[in-house]
Amino acid sequence: MIVVVCPNLALDVTYHMAVATPGAANRVDRVTTMAGGKGVNVARVLTALGAEATVLGFSGGRAGNAVRADLAASGVPQSVLPVSGETRRTVAVVEESTGRATLYLEPGPVVSHPEWAQLLARFAELMDAAALAVLSGSLPPGLPVDAYAQLVRLARQHGVPALVDADGEPLLRALAERPALIKPNADELVAATELTDPLAAARALRERGSEAVVASLGPDGLLAVDAGGTWRARPPERFTGNPTGAGDSAVAALALGLVDATPWPRRLAEAVALSAATVLSPVAGGFDLPAYRRLRGRIRVTRIEPDEEQSCPK
Amino acid sequence: MIVVVCPNLALDVTYHMAVATPGAANRVDRVTTMAGGKGVNVARVLTALGAEATVLGFSGGRAGNAVRADLAASGVPQSVLPVSGETRRTVAVVEESTGRATLYLEPGPVVSHPEWAQLLARFAELMDAAALAVLSGSLPPGLPVDAYAQLVRLARQHGVPALVDADGEPLLRALAERPALIKPNADELVAATELTDPLAAARALRERGSEAVVASLGPDGLLAVDAGGTWRARPPERFTGNPTGAGDSAVAALALGLVDATPWPRRLAEAVALSAATVLSPVAGGFDLPAYRRLRGRIRVTRIEPDEEQSCPK
Repeated sequence: MIVVVCPNLALDVTYHMAVATPGAANRVDRVTTMAGGKGVNVARVLTALGAEATVLGFSGGRAGNAVRADLAASGVPQSVLPVSGETRRTVAVVEESTGRATLYLEPGPVVSHPEWAQLLARFAELMDAAALAVLSGSLPPGLPVDAYAQLVRLARQHGVPALVDADGEPLLRALAERPALIKPNADELVAATELTDPLAAARALRERGSEAVVASLGPDGLLAVDAGGTWRARPPERFTGNPTGAGDSAVAALALGLVDATPWPRRLAEAVALSAATVLSPVAGGFDLPAYRRLRGRIRVTRIEPDEEQSCPK
Repeated sequence: MIVVVCPNLALDVTYHMAVATPGAANRVDRVTTMAGGKGVNVARVLTALGAEATVLGFSGGRAGNAVRADLAASGVPQSVLPVSGETRRTVAVVEESTGRATLYLEPGPVVSHPEWAQLLARFAELMDAAALAVLSGSLPPGLPVDAYAQLVRLARQHGVPALVDADGEPLLRALAERPALIKPNADELVAATELTDPLAAARALRERGSEAVVASLGPDGLLAVDAGGTWRARPPERFTGNPTGAGDSAVAALALGLVDATPWPRRLAEAVALSAATVLSPVAGGFDLPAYRRLRGRIRVTRIEPDEEQSCPK
């Protein structure tokens, strides 16, 4: 089982309208809601691929109830703990005329120390039967900045590897506990290392403690660095669509690759194909299954030799 | 007592952030909430001015509870009926760097026929002790398009005049029941009459049934038309600030003027001063009391004679 910790679950609210004018009052044509948060997207994809995954997080209030109901309706197993605050909302304003989506992300409810202690206890229980812990997304207010570090340590004490998809200080703290894999995107790489070259930045982060680093470079694909070498995976073409959740789909594929110890070339090909199939899906966070099946054999993965480093992407 | 019907109560949510980038994921720094809906703004101002007013509307779900709690905390009397749907939210994205506010207005919960019948019954009860009915804002889904027309008729059957601040078909239907006053803004005037000259449009609406029409022309002030003549009121200068609720403050002043049968020049001066003081308030929907006191003696009100019609504002 893969335990996906999503400490800042969200009710993703989408406002559909023809066009939104900044500075004006815009009437929303249609409101749709679904459970969200990066970890939820990861668990949805894992579940869709037939893997056993459970979402561990907090839910509170009416928005929290809606999140739990939507997870149940989607068949995503959950270990969601009650919290006294109200689960945050994210609002996505989607302009149907252009397809442009603007996201507003609330910070989330303040989680108390006892509530955090309950999550740690539940996480430890789940580790007994876990093959992997995925720690994904932002931390709600109130959680210690080393929350992910604590979880990586707990997982390791149970012999369970951890994959961390986070940014800022929570990510840097987690590195000290030697996670199996981290997956920064291009912006997070720069923010964490102040290096603009993705390969140099990925190697710098690996030196700070992660066993492997996979950098997601948007439409340019993925870059993986571990003790055995460096790999680059590129999609066969540039896809346009809704990139929401594309990084989370890559995490889901990387999680399966970690559990199955799939060699890097195939692991990266799966991740890039699933990511592209997510961009191609009309539903935010969903993925286009036929596109995924078609693309997985068409991803170009190359090993970067030490003397080829100039060829790495900027 | 002034009964303010606000059929589409809202939980007004404000997202504060330095800057919001269209097409990007924007982290919200701070979330504030308060009861909203045009009628709530009117009742707040009436209460602040010492008038006895009550808000009649529907509330449902957690957002509805938050609306009722905020009204109670603000000392605004309420006659709010339960509804099975969830009260709508409005989201105002306020960019602190520029002060720009972008509003997103949810359509509101579907109100069933029995729920509407309950509101009609409660309205009829309240009419026994009412001096005026104010009908304000949009209709939630499910309400008949002649909802305001029904309320104007019910009020008149109790000898109570009605002030309608609405637009579109609900406004046009209400005209047939002869409300005492309607307060369209410049856009609503054009939409209702297809005339671009505000004076001609206001007169056309009066001919369709309203005893008086006060058109709000934004920073250009107000234009009033009734059987006795036409008046124009202008603020002494252009004020910059947050215009949210400025029209609702004008409605509150016009409501008091109607109840007290204040002559038009003073009635309009009060409405323009209160409107400007609302623009000057840092809190959306509040008003700047010292500014209001200072401005009310400085509003220029002129009577437009029939042969001066060319001087009317475009």
